[in-house]
Amino acid sequence: MPSRVYLDWNATTPLRPEARAAMLAAWELIGNPSSVHAEGREARRLVEDARAVLAAAVGALPRNVVFTSSGTEANTLALSPGLRRPSGEPARRLLVSAVEHPSVLAGGRFPPDDVGQIRVTRSGVVDLDHLRDLLAGGRPALVSIMAANNETGALQPVAEAARIVHEAGGLLHVDAIQALGKIPIEINAMGADLATFSAHKVGGPKGVGALIVAEGLTGLEPLLRGGGQELNRRAGTENVAGIAGFGAVMKAALQTLSEDAERMTSLRDRLANGIRAIAGATIFSDEVERLPNTVLFTARGLKAETAVIGFDLEGIAVSSGSACSSGKVQPSHVLSAMGYDPVVAQGAVRLSLGWSTEPDDINRALEAWRKLGNTLLRA
Amino acid sequence: MPSRVYLDWNATTPLRPEARAAMLAAWELIGNPSSVHAEGREARRLVEDARAVLAAAVGALPRNVVFTSSGTEANTLALSPGLRRPSGEPARRLLVSAVEHPSVLAGGRFPPDDVGQIRVTRSGVVDLDHLRDLLAGGRPALVSIMAANNETGALQPVAEAARIVHEAGGLLHVDAIQALGKIPIEINAMGADLATFSAHKVGGPKGVGALIVAEGLTGLEPLLRGGGQELNRRAGTENVAGIAGFGAVMKAALQTLSEDAERMTSLRDRLANGIRAIAGATIFSDEVERLPNTVLFTARGLKAETAVIGFDLEGIAVSSGSACSSGKVQPSHVLSAMGYDPVVAQGAVRLSLGWSTEPDDINRALEAWRKLGNTLLRA
Repeated sequence: MPSRVYLDWNATTPLRPEARAAMLAAWELIGNPSSVHAEGREARRLVEDARAVLAAAVGALPRNVVFTSSGTEANTLALSPGLRRPSGEPARRLLVSAVEHPSVLAGGRFPPDDVGQIRVTRSGVVDLDHLRDLLAGGRPALVSIMAANNETGALQPVAEAARIVHEAGGLLHVDAIQALGKIPIEINAMGADLATFSAHKVGGPKGVGALIVAEGLTGLEPLLRGGGQELNRRAGTENVAGIAGFGAVMKAALQTLSEDAERMTSLRDRLANGIRAIAGATIFSDEVERLPNTVLFTARGLKAETAVIGFDLEGIAVSSGSACSSGKVQPSHVLSAMGYDPVVAQGAVRLSLGWSTEPDDINRALEAWRKLGNTLLRA
Repeated sequence: MPSRVYLDWNATTPLRPEARAAMLAAWELIGNPSSVHAEGREARRLVEDARAVLAAAVGALPRNVVFTSSGTEANTLALSPGLRRPSGEPARRLLVSAVEHPSVLAGGRFPPDDVGQIRVTRSGVVDLDHLRDLLAGGRPALVSIMAANNETGALQPVAEAARIVHEAGGLLHVDAIQALGKIPIEINAMGADLATFSAHKVGGPKGVGALIVAEGLTGLEPLLRGGGQELNRRAGTENVAGIAGFGAVMKAALQTLSEDAERMTSLRDRLANGIRAIAGATIFSDEVERLPNTVLFTARGLKAETAVIGFDLEGIAVSSGSACSSGKVQPSHVLSAMGYDPVVAQGAVRLSLGWSTEPDDINRALEAWRKLGNTLLRA
């Protein structure tokens, strides 16, 4: 039996050996980082080393990194009413792009009435004119725009959005969870006042995320209170091994970022060209800049649910879009926001690549799509 | 150089081999539990197997187990205004015992004005008469009482408290984090409507906790929203390996619970007797039933901070009480609540044992205390 082909890296990535090694080493340390004895201090050092690595990787100061248990927690923590710059007014409403991750669309701690949505174009890119309109004359806003969309891979104009938001006296949160490790991410270049990350999308462990808060920003309301961990911004004993794994994987991912991206782009282009040539398939956000690893496509009459199962039976793990809805295949809110009708939004299949994806994986995916395209669409 | 002696098991416990093995196995699974392909389904199975183990261990149904990222998160999730039984009224205020963990004292999602404190006796046991007084005539309350205190080890009368609370139309949350794995914990025997747990206090990994909600209880307000994970009660990709480690360790801990407890009790008694015989030391909560592994003591003139460092230099890891305040040695809120003055509350040292504690560890701890008691107290 041929081995499995994993093309669902945007849902979660296989653990990188560097993360594994760092976590194994961390397991040898038995202390609680809050304890003052030698065992505690050793655990503390591991956490702080990882913090320094992540901070350096994205151009932040270590003290501005808050480790969390997931990207979802980091996003929820970030979307905190009352955030403000030293010279600014506290954010009183939240504007999120319509293609954000569900944890951002949920609005964090803002009352539902204070949350608005920014439109996206047919290509899945945030409509900056609509952002300007929404900001004009309203109360100070926190704006949340992702660096890259997890379903289409479309890169978002975060740096331009930052200028618009800041001119209007607002703050920008960038969910960089899907982009981290795939394209360069630097919080100052993005103009982000807050940025969020997740370890397991970069080859680190599941169960670790991070929020980075720009220097001087105040008003972050903790979600978890009690202990003084994370400079009083996130109580609870730290996931020492997981955090160490996140640090190790960031170091490794950055070292190979450009060559990985180049390799993935080339494989992705071959994949995309192959898919387009079969069963009249079209690729979403094809005309805009995308992550080097993501292809979301459909064909007339395609049902995502049966397609994903069909690929699975051919030995290939793919996704119907986002994996964050407990396995249920619902119409993609991303494609709906891009103006596609529910039939199309329920018919999209995502193939996402990673650093260990081989040319033969692409061959097998194309073979499978040829077979499925012919049988599923005839049926 | 003699090896280190670790007597700070209440802060965090060394990883049990069973947890390690389960997590190593989990690392081989690359899927996201929310994905529908084979890799996703395998990850899902691991999470659900662990859920079934934990549920069975404490007498709950698997569907009522919510995995979280820590005990602190589980406590915060539990303390949710509006919780209600099918026939009851929603909880409108929160009563917590004065010796609860800081994450409970913080009050969860209740407004500060709606949080009251239940007194404890000089022995560190919840004063049930005060509980009755506080409940009488007031709005429906959620009451939070821990199964055993993390600093003194004192067991709390949770079953009696449950009867009192339920008669008054209230709900009981039991923080069983410190008790799990040390004494039998059964949610129905305790009368708990909600109960919280943490993996790393049982020899599982740091970064995993759980909340158990009694069948039929409604009104739990999620902290993290977006994905549908944990039956819509806690969004975010699951910490698959950590959860698998929690499950494995629960299975292992239950199998040896009674022999571990017996062994620890015997070692603890020898430790307590030895400590009492040196430098006029007294043990807190000595006259009430305690966890089989915990000794909190002081002596006239003892300063916890220097004592902990002194023990550390002798190769012995001990604690000044709780490890949840980022290493700072502050007066113990537990001893303050028990009526001790700040000097005493700042002079308590905790030794907590675990299943791998050996008789020789006790000998070395007593030697160290003999040395320290003589030098520190003379100074």
